[in-house]
Amino acid sequence: MAVEFGNIRIVLVETSHPGNIGAAARAMKNMFLEQLVLVSPKNFPDPEGKSKAMASGADDVLASVRIVDTLDEAIADCGFVVGASARLRAIPWPILHPRECAEQIASVSAEDKVALVFGREDRGLTNEELERCNALVHIPANPAYNSLNIAAAVQVLSYEINMAAFLAGEGEQPKAEFYDHPRATADEMEGLYQHFESALNKLGFYDPANPRQLMRRLRRLFNRAALDKMEVNILRGILKAAESGGKGRKNNINNG
Amino acid sequence: MAVEFGNIRIVLVETSHPGNIGAAARAMKNMFLEQLVLVSPKNFPDPEGKSKAMASGADDVLASVRIVDTLDEAIADCGFVVGASARLRAIPWPILHPRECAEQIASVSAEDKVALVFGREDRGLTNEELERCNALVHIPANPAYNSLNIAAAVQVLSYEINMAAFLAGEGEQPKAEFYDHPRATADEMEGLYQHFESALNKLGFYDPANPRQLMRRLRRLFNRAALDKMEVNILRGILKAAESGGKGRKNNINNG
Repeated sequence: MAVEFGNIRIVLVETSHPGNIGAAARAMKNMFLEQLVLVSPKNFPDPEGKSKAMASGADDVLASVRIVDTLDEAIADCGFVVGASARLRAIPWPILHPRECAEQIASVSAEDKVALVFGREDRGLTNEELERCNALVHIPANPAYNSLNIAAAVQVLSYEINMAAFLAGEGEQPKAEFYDHPRATADEMEGLYQHFESALNKLGFYDPANPRQLMRRLRRLFNRAALDKMEVNILRGILKAAESGGKGRKNNINNG
Repeated sequence: MAVEFGNIRIVLVETSHPGNIGAAARAMKNMFLEQLVLVSPKNFPDPEGKSKAMASGADDVLASVRIVDTLDEAIADCGFVVGASARLRAIPWPILHPRECAEQIASVSAEDKVALVFGREDRGLTNEELERCNALVHIPANPAYNSLNIAAAVQVLSYEINMAAFLAGEGEQPKAEFYDHPRATADEMEGLYQHFESALNKLGFYDPANPRQLMRRLRRLFNRAALDKMEVNILRGILKAAESGGKGRKNNINNG
């Protein structure tokens, strides 16, 4: 499968050790990946130069790193977001193994931007962060010692993405493509969820006593489906009509 | 394919940096591999404890390490020996990619001992050492920056060996599942789509001039997501609330 490496970014959330950032840059560059985004890194840039030492020649990846405050900023324009999760049941969410993950990323990268998100060294990603993802990826490992270094995890997943490209010549069957519109970006998905929340509030459907569970289930459903822009438009159109109680509202979406 | 992890050893030849030995031990243990053989390591055991620091809990692998003088000693009882080679044509020898390598190692491990050999950080394996191998393995990488850290290479190949075991079990073991409710039946899905149609009608959102396209898009979206029963309940609850214009309606779905 053709892989558009330039459409794939690695996102590291609140990494503590600059050495890990450098090692991740090295792992990436070996596998043709060069876009690194750091969300609120704890010690970067590091005056001691540990990140540079571990990058070992992948300094250009470090030099062009993008640093942002929130995960939402890091993934805003991405049509497909995968979160790396060490725990198998962090939250019940679609879970891929690395090969499936790489195949999906490779496939989506032909048309859309993709983010592969890694959490903190000690605590991984929060549930709120995992809920931003279309799918989670879990690297099968010894349950008695499941302690992959973050750069090792970046290495394994970057390797699998490159393997998808490498094996492309060996009789890969094209995937059935059903998207006739570009994928919705993470930003557009957040807009949809906010619309859901406010509309369900107005309808009195939303239970303020237990808000998380309902929204989480809606997030899981629609992230799993990986919506395109037209689908987001349709859903927002429905929400708008529902909010206004359907008073003479017309379907003004060109859902052709 | 069943993998006999106990028959597989990792051999590191003349490694310079003890930190790399520790990181390799960590990479191995994550993937169920525990037999580490060092051929004339340059700085091991290391009083500074760098190997232990990088092993990060895989100390038992370090503690049971076997140190020998020559590669021949390290592989003497092995029925299959694979050498990791960063250079593609170091010597003309059978070259596997990591997945082929892992499949062959997995297959041989059922009956025989196997060694996977990694060379020096700066110079890899000598031709004489490569000639000891049944095959070579090359990790596909960016030719403009082919600089995998030795522990990263151990990680990738150990991962592939574990993936051979993981995928072999996939037929029997259930896949990581996110469904915490039974899947909706086709019947229940039809009920949902009829509900959508009538609700959108009441809201005036549904365009009778072009009914097919909107419903088709909704079908495609929700069929793609393969809903569970709870998700159908939630969506029908929302539609019900929307139909009645949210007049004092309560969310009476137990969406726990």
